[in-house]
Amino acid sequence: MVNIAFTVVIFVSSYLVSIHGFRIAILGASGYTGAELMRLLLNHPETKIDVLSATDRNAGQEFKAIYPQFSYVKNLPKLTKWEESQKQIEECDVAFCCLPHGTTQEIISKLSKSPVKIVDLSADFRLKDVNVYEKWYGKAHAAVELQKQAVYGLTELNRENIRGCKLLANPGCYPTAAQLPLIPLLRSKLILPEDIIIDAKSGVTGAGRSPKESSLYCEVADGIHAYSVGNHRHAPEIEQGLSEAAQQEMIINFTPHLMPMSRGILESIYVKLSPGKTVEHLKERLIEQYQDESFVHILEGSVLPQTRHVRGSNHVFINVVKDRVPGRAIIISAIDNVVKGASGQAIQNMNVMLDLPETLGLLQAPMFP
Amino acid sequence: MVNIAFTVVIFVSSYLVSIHGFRIAILGASGYTGAELMRLLLNHPETKIDVLSATDRNAGQEFKAIYPQFSYVKNLPKLTKWEESQKQIEECDVAFCCLPHGTTQEIISKLSKSPVKIVDLSADFRLKDVNVYEKWYGKAHAAVELQKQAVYGLTELNRENIRGCKLLANPGCYPTAAQLPLIPLLRSKLILPEDIIIDAKSGVTGAGRSPKESSLYCEVADGIHAYSVGNHRHAPEIEQGLSEAAQQEMIINFTPHLMPMSRGILESIYVKLSPGKTVEHLKERLIEQYQDESFVHILEGSVLPQTRHVRGSNHVFINVVKDRVPGRAIIISAIDNVVKGASGQAIQNMNVMLDLPETLGLLQAPMFP
Amino acid sequence: MVNIAFTVVIFVSSYLVSIHGFRIAILGASGYTGAELMRLLLNHPETKIDVLSATDRNAGQEFKAIYPQFSYVKNLPKLTKWEESQKQIEECDVAFCCLPHGTTQEIISKLSKSPVKIVDLSADFRLKDVNVYEKWYGKAHAAVELQKQAVYGLTELNRENIRGCKLLANPGCYPTAAQLPLIPLLRSKLILPEDIIIDAKSGVTGAGRSPKESSLYCEVADGIHAYSVGNHRHAPEIEQGLSEAAQQEMIINFTPHLMPMSRGILESIYVKLSPGKTVEHLKERLIEQYQDESFVHILEGSVLPQTRHVRGSNHVFINVVKDRVPGRAIIISAIDNVVKGASGQAIQNMNVMLDLPETLGLLQAPMFP
Amino acid sequence: MVNIAFTVVIFVSSYLVSIHGFRIAILGASGYTGAELMRLLLNHPETKIDVLSATDRNAGQEFKAIYPQFSYVKNLPKLTKWEESQKQIEECDVAFCCLPHGTTQEIISKLSKSPVKIVDLSADFRLKDVNVYEKWYGKAHAAVELQKQAVYGLTELNRENIRGCKLLANPGCYPTAAQLPLIPLLRSKLILPEDIIIDAKSGVTGAGRSPKESSLYCEVADGIHAYSVGNHRHAPEIEQGLSEAAQQEMIINFTPHLMPMSRGILESIYVKLSPGKTVEHLKERLIEQYQDESFVHILEGSVLPQTRHVRGSNHVFINVVKDRVPGRAIIISAIDNVVKGASGQAIQNMNVMLDLPETLGLLQAPMFP
Repeated sequence: MVNIAFTVVIFVSSYLVSIHGFRIAILGASGYTGAELMRLLLNHPETKIDVLSATDRNAGQEFKAIYPQFSYVKNLPKLTKWEESQKQIEECDVAFCCLPHGTTQEIISKLSKSPVKIVDLSADFRLKDVNVYEKWYGKAHAAVELQKQAVYGLTELNRENIRGCKLLANPGCYPTAAQLPLIPLLRSKLILPEDIIIDAKSGVTGAGRSPKESSLYCEVADGIHAYSVGNHRHAPEIEQGLSEAAQQEMIINFTPHLMPMSRGILESIYVKLSPGKTVEHLKERLIEQYQDESFVHILEGSVLPQTRHVRGSNHVFINVVKDRVPGRAIIISAIDNVVKGASGQAIQNMNVMLDLPETLGLLQAPMFP
Repeated sequence: MVNIAFTVVIFVSSYLVSIHGFRIAILGASGYTGAELMRLLLNHPETKIDVLSATDRNAGQEFKAIYPQFSYVKNLPKLTKWEESQKQIEECDVAFCCLPHGTTQEIISKLSKSPVKIVDLSADFRLKDVNVYEKWYGKAHAAVELQKQAVYGLTELNRENIRGCKLLANPGCYPTAAQLPLIPLLRSKLILPEDIIIDAKSGVTGAGRSPKESSLYCEVADGIHAYSVGNHRHAPEIEQGLSEAAQQEMIINFTPHLMPMSRGILESIYVKLSPGKTVEHLKERLIEQYQDESFVHILEGSVLPQTRHVRGSNHVFINVVKDRVPGRAIIISAIDNVVKGASGQAIQNMNVMLDLPETLGLLQAPMFP
Repeated sequence: MVNIAFTVVIFVSSYLVSIHGFRIAILGASGYTGAELMRLLLNHPETKIDVLSATDRNAGQEFKAIYPQFSYVKNLPKLTKWEESQKQIEECDVAFCCLPHGTTQEIISKLSKSPVKIVDLSADFRLKDVNVYEKWYGKAHAAVELQKQAVYGLTELNRENIRGCKLLANPGCYPTAAQLPLIPLLRSKLILPEDIIIDAKSGVTGAGRSPKESSLYCEVADGIHAYSVGNHRHAPEIEQGLSEAAQQEMIINFTPHLMPMSRGILESIYVKLSPGKTVEHLKERLIEQYQDESFVHILEGSVLPQTRHVRGSNHVFINVVKDRVPGRAIIISAIDNVVKGASGQAIQNMNVMLDLPETLGLLQAPMFP
Repeated sequence: MVNIAFTVVIFVSSYLVSIHGFRIAILGASGYTGAELMRLLLNHPETKIDVLSATDRNAGQEFKAIYPQFSYVKNLPKLTKWEESQKQIEECDVAFCCLPHGTTQEIISKLSKSPVKIVDLSADFRLKDVNVYEKWYGKAHAAVELQKQAVYGLTELNRENIRGCKLLANPGCYPTAAQLPLIPLLRSKLILPEDIIIDAKSGVTGAGRSPKESSLYCEVADGIHAYSVGNHRHAPEIEQGLSEAAQQEMIINFTPHLMPMSRGILESIYVKLSPGKTVEHLKERLIEQYQDESFVHILEGSVLPQTRHVRGSNHVFINVVKDRVPGRAIIISAIDNVVKGASGQAIQNMNVMLDLPETLGLLQAPMFP
């Protein structure tokens, strides 16, 4: 235990008073983000899992029946249909929603009258403009009023709004890795808002646990391919954040690739420097922005981010590299898509919403190899 | 946080008195077991890393230069040659030795006069009979007297001897996965000591971080092969433990395979039942043996252990399965070779040696997917 | 081109007379064995693909729409429903059936009145005893009369019966790798029929292309587990072949494992030597059996078979290794499950049935790395 | 066998006169490109391998001792030191040089007086300007005169110069995948020469078989990272080809990534359209360029190239995709780096140099899965 000791000691004295911890519900617990919430919350000293809901197929089962890695954990609630547990969910302090797009709006609408705080891991409340939602998701937004209350949970850049919010829209994995480096640079006008190219590579957990041909081992192993080029639903989410930062409408190139790894996103982002600006300016700005953050790290020198170096952790590794093409720079960022790109950031946001230390339950070191 | 909360709360009150934590040295920190000790100790609330030694090539470097996943950790000591840090090591509470076979005996001999407790992750002190050592390692044992003091660290089955020991021989990865199920069954004479066949499959971390052709990505990916059949050095270690349990000299079949995964060992162990005994008798015996253990779990029903379900954790998953061949049974056990098979068990042993709660720093949940 | 030149030149003169080649139908072409038949037949100088049938979902599509690796191949027939093409299939010389169990019996019954020769890659006609079929497949055999005519296509050991047969039951992948070494040894009584343990490791193509959770990338990558222990349907197929060779009823241990590779089966087979017999006797016998074969190779010295060394080829690599346990031996065999374990052996059998050179279209070298 | 039958029949009659085939030497046969030449030449009906040279460490061994996948091949020459076989090499028709950079220039200089035609797979003769060579490789070019004779072997775009050449510089893997789509588009001025960004992802064979930490399984599996950003030696090779096509000095962005696959390169290339041009113009131009080629294929519609769909084959799959950013396009190309990116293209070039059918020995279908 090195530099994190102090933090631990600090909060320990306070959480001794909490006998049970905050009560947690996980809706849609049978997917990978549900399992990851479980993994992380088992190490969270201030929470207690009260409800685990799942689809019909899994309802009634033990959680360990679908995720045997938790065979050793005792006293977990059984999986239920969410309707059966609605009352219990409404009595929880926080409900994490890991439900499919669309379904989410409906269920959250029903829960919204109760005091339970909601951390939504779906895309349903990420887009502020409901018309953009309709355009990209092919149907009208079903909870327009709620959308206005939803707070976008890119923690490091929106912390003040997250504190005290009741409905949190947890960012997408790709948008997290893209916005963390790009927003401060656009705000500072160090890079141009034109011609931003995001070449992203993702692990397969991003496709979820539902059986589909394109996620089969043999279809993914030993190869790589681009997909959803020009029409991936994370593009408008990224553009929303960047446009706000640049104070102008932006269109970006976002090209996702699927590759044989379970976890991780690497984004190689190609940008144009504003006149007179250099790679050093960009790097200094990012260091300044994130130097007091626990999870966002600008790597020293020419060390390049690798997804495996953040695996299993809530960390973001970023570096800025000189391009041989004059006037350009390359930004590389790496996250674990299931942690900082989903369940980890969700817990980070929960911590902020509950006024707990932000790193609680999230200080596990990356696992490499 | 579910059933582990109670444990956490219990020890928290005691470790608040420890300001700095126990002082730790890691010798040979540049290998994978060194990196894994670091990963786990960063979550250990009672330790403080004082010395990191490495070979000449790496000495003088920052630890994060060779393991960039720790880029975010501040104030880690630099890598030094062990000789330069000998005095400092001798003032530590515990030294973990992750050194090559042979070298270990020499260095530990030099340290043995100081009060530092040693947890040795090499094979140098595992074999009680120095002649067996010489036969399998091709040279005379260089620390015969020390060998007599060394305690074999299969924690769950040798806990009383570990408490208070000064030189601990941490078990090999394959022997850990084999002995935990087999020793209780042999002691109880539920299985016959003849014809035990251990078909083992290991991840590639077991081969270490030294560059060699056989560990290259392209030589390991998308395939499997047996290696060291009939002459793997873990065979005598397994036989030593089993022979003692059976109270008779045993020769076993041990066939290791290398396969494309970074971490994990799965052992499919084929045994003969003692007359009149059934699979149920075996399973009951193992449940009885391990029901109060934090890390060894006999799976329910017909759930079969998977290496990925213990990945990154100190857990051992075991089950016993009926064989179609009358009079036989199949035992399957899974561990993470780098955790329970090396650095995790080393920390577990350190906890016992220092009279700390045995699970301290080791309660991270397995990481799947 | 080295030692295979001679063969090539020999048959070339004869196949020049064939203008179109033998007419081929592939039923159930959308699965992995269908795609593999395509890959191999594209290099077969004596065949011409006339019909590609698929399930409803894929019928009507171009083959390259479901297998884009064939985008460059021109003039392939479209996928049709088999009923629509029945007449055309019946006019083919050979129909490969890659259909699900059960369905196969029904369709083959309908085709059996026409002259088309059938190579069936399903398990429907492998078990000679229809009662054993019913026991393991859970329903009565629907083509009892046809079963009597079916010839089991373990080419090297049943060649004479294959020549001229009309309905060929192509062996399962696991049984192929097990029987090729074991049958000659049992016939010669060099090993005992008791206590044979087959620890098998398979790639994921064996599970087919149908979407299911257990075949998803994230469920298979970076780990291994046993499955269907004691109840895998290949067990009776293996026992049928071995019992016949040993001239006594045999029960074997067969323990399959699923591991992260696309192709390949490795079997580590643990046997007991007959009194007075040694590993050398076993190896000599196998060399004698297979020395004139093109596809079965007993490796020299202590070289151990690796699945990646037969990848993409119809070869079988086998070696016999001394066990430290007296009186025992270890046999290791490796095949590509999609080639020698399915589509390659199917073509090999077709070649025999059509009186073509047995190696035609199958001389591609293994692909490593 | 479908559309390739005709080709086969055509050349068969001619190669019957060749009794032994052209005599081939492979220098540096112990690396992956050497093994791949062997794999492909074993299927080449017009060649005969006479010499296999290797470094000191491997000289004297059987080829199958270092590549056991060839255990079944008889009569291969033993590995020798190249000096011992110099005379024999000089009597060969073609020598493939798979030697390290630098060494190559020296050895080829010595061979250059003999009539043996040389296909050099190193980078030593790819850069026409010896000053650029010196700048990027850190030492003066040692064979300046030979450099002038060397012909760059991007077969489809330089076929006429290759025919009859004596020293062929086989292109690098990354440059092959980049130049095939970009050169025709630059020549036709359909895209602008500014701001071309090549985001490339490579399999690990590209790093060779020499043991190094960065190529170890555990360092590569389950992750991705960029490397050599801004200073990869393939950048000047790409720029040389593109500059010539654009008839102006070009600087490009080339960002290679290493990822967990054995074979394959995928390049996502971001370009700016010339004023008034569209994605359709680009695609039409590429179709026109390559419609009669056997190995370069522009995919239909929106099918995106995948590395696994060209695995093991000499094919190149390319498509052009609309970018959401106005005025831009995305070109994606996939090759097998060991085949079209090295040994396959080397054989294709040899075929041209020897006036053989260009596809000879190269018609194996891609292997997927």
